Amino acid sequence: MHIGKVVGTVVATRKDEKLVGSKLMITQPLKFNMEPKGDPIIAVDTVGAGIGEIVIYTTGTAGRIAARKLDAPIDASIIGIVDNIDIHDLDE
Amino acid sequence: MHIGKVVGTVVATRKDEKLVGSKLMITQPLKFNMEPKGDPIIAVDTVGAGIGEIVIYTTGTAGRIAARKLDAPIDASIIGIVDNIDIHDLDE
Amino acid sequence: MHIGKVVGTVVATRKDEKLVGSKLMITQPLKFNMEPKGDPIIAVDTVGAGIGEIVIYTTGTAGRIAARKLDAPIDASIIGIVDNIDIHDLDE
Amino acid sequence: MHIGKVVGTVVATRKDEKLVGSKLMITQPLKFNMEPKGDPIIAVDTVGAGIGEIVIYTTGTAGRIAARKLDAPIDASIIGIVDNIDIHDLDE
Amino acid sequence: MHIGKVVGTVVATRKDEKLVGSKLMITQPLKFNMEPKGDPIIAVDTVGAGIGEIVIYTTGTAGRIAARKLDAPIDASIIGIVDNIDIHDLDE
Repeated sequence: MHIGKVVGTVVATRKDEKLVGSKLMITQPLKFNMEPKGDPIIAVDTVGAGIGEIVIYTTGTAGRIAARKLDAPIDASIIGIVDNIDIHDLDE
Repeated sequence: MHIGKVVGTVVATRKDEKLVGSKLMITQPLKFNMEPKGDPIIAVDTVGAGIGEIVIYTTGTAGRIAARKLDAPIDASIIGIVDNIDIHDLDE
Repeated sequence: MHIGKVVGTVVATRKDEKLVGSKLMITQPLKFNMEPKGDPIIAVDTVGAGIGEIVIYTTGTAGRIAARKLDAPIDASIIGIVDNIDIHDLDE
Repeated sequence: MHIGKVVGTVVATRKDEKLVGSKLMITQPLKFNMEPKGDPIIAVDTVGAGIGEIVIYTTGTAGRIAARKLDAPIDASIIGIVDNIDIHDLDE
Repeated sequence: MHIGKVVGTVVATRKDEKLVGSKLMITQPLKFNMEPKGDPIIAVDTVGAGIGEIVIYTTGTAGRIAARKLDAPIDASIIGIVDNIDIHDLDE
């Protein structure tokens, strides 16, 4: 799993019907020092995440499992809101 | 999921029979500022996307789910046409 | 899916028995302008592709589906011979 | 599989209920010379790994298998504590 | 699939019990000109590969299929020993 920041939303009226009811959040992957890492992805929100929140997201089949929609074409979902990150030892 | 722009088509007469009837679209991955990101991929169109449209695509098993062809060798599909992108907060 | 060029073959006498009968083709991933992209991979040929041909290949579970060998350790297969590529709009 | 070093923990109170009871460890991927490689990921601990330990982790479906939670949105797990690494021949 | 060179072994006494009996080989990915490509990974040996041998390895679910252990947290396996590589045409 990875951490990211919810930075926006995507609206698509014409879409796979299995996506109806799934909120598509633009999520910026983050390093653990909160710097952005690469480009944002689209992840389905499964925990009520809001704009600006730091979240945990998961990819692949795990994204469909999180959304409880195994028959939907989802490959990434937000699965938690980060309360605290505790780094004890990072040699870089 | 990711966003991309449909930029072309690929025609293959000799191909896996499970691909017959699937439209193979050349899709340029995009950043959320609409700049191209990396090289185009081939994705199966499942929503009637046209050349030049900004789309949402999905990869892996989710691509087969989108195409409703679990027994076809598909690893990427277009699953929505983007109407609107709303970026509230992107620190970069 | 991606496009590539078949550039060679790999022979392995000592191998997983489920691979017996599968032709292992060295496939150079290509950009859509036909420039090489990254390093070659090994893909199982499922369409009778020859050396020098431009092909469509697929990865992951889709590779096993293409080979009709769900119990073989295949993670990439050639699934079509490219007849024509039509790029209408590529802003880069 | 890959090796990494456990460098911290992530706490998320609001999360997918299937993650309850799974310890989320921040794991820094390592090269075999123990230099960090890329950015840390979040992996579920399945072997009682402690901060600072060098571990083996696995990704994708293998991560859910390791956690014995096939219905949880897990895509990476720690599956072993490294006792010894023996490099015989590395031409670089 | 990819080619690599077996360069060492990893020993982990405390590990997922499903890994017991699987030999964990440090495998350096190779380009087809035998230059190293990126960093080594850990792959389960399924063909009796020895240190220094050039092998074919596979990743993801295909790794578990190769090891005939669908319930083990394996995401990469060695599936063949390379006898011969024949490159006919490589434009780079």
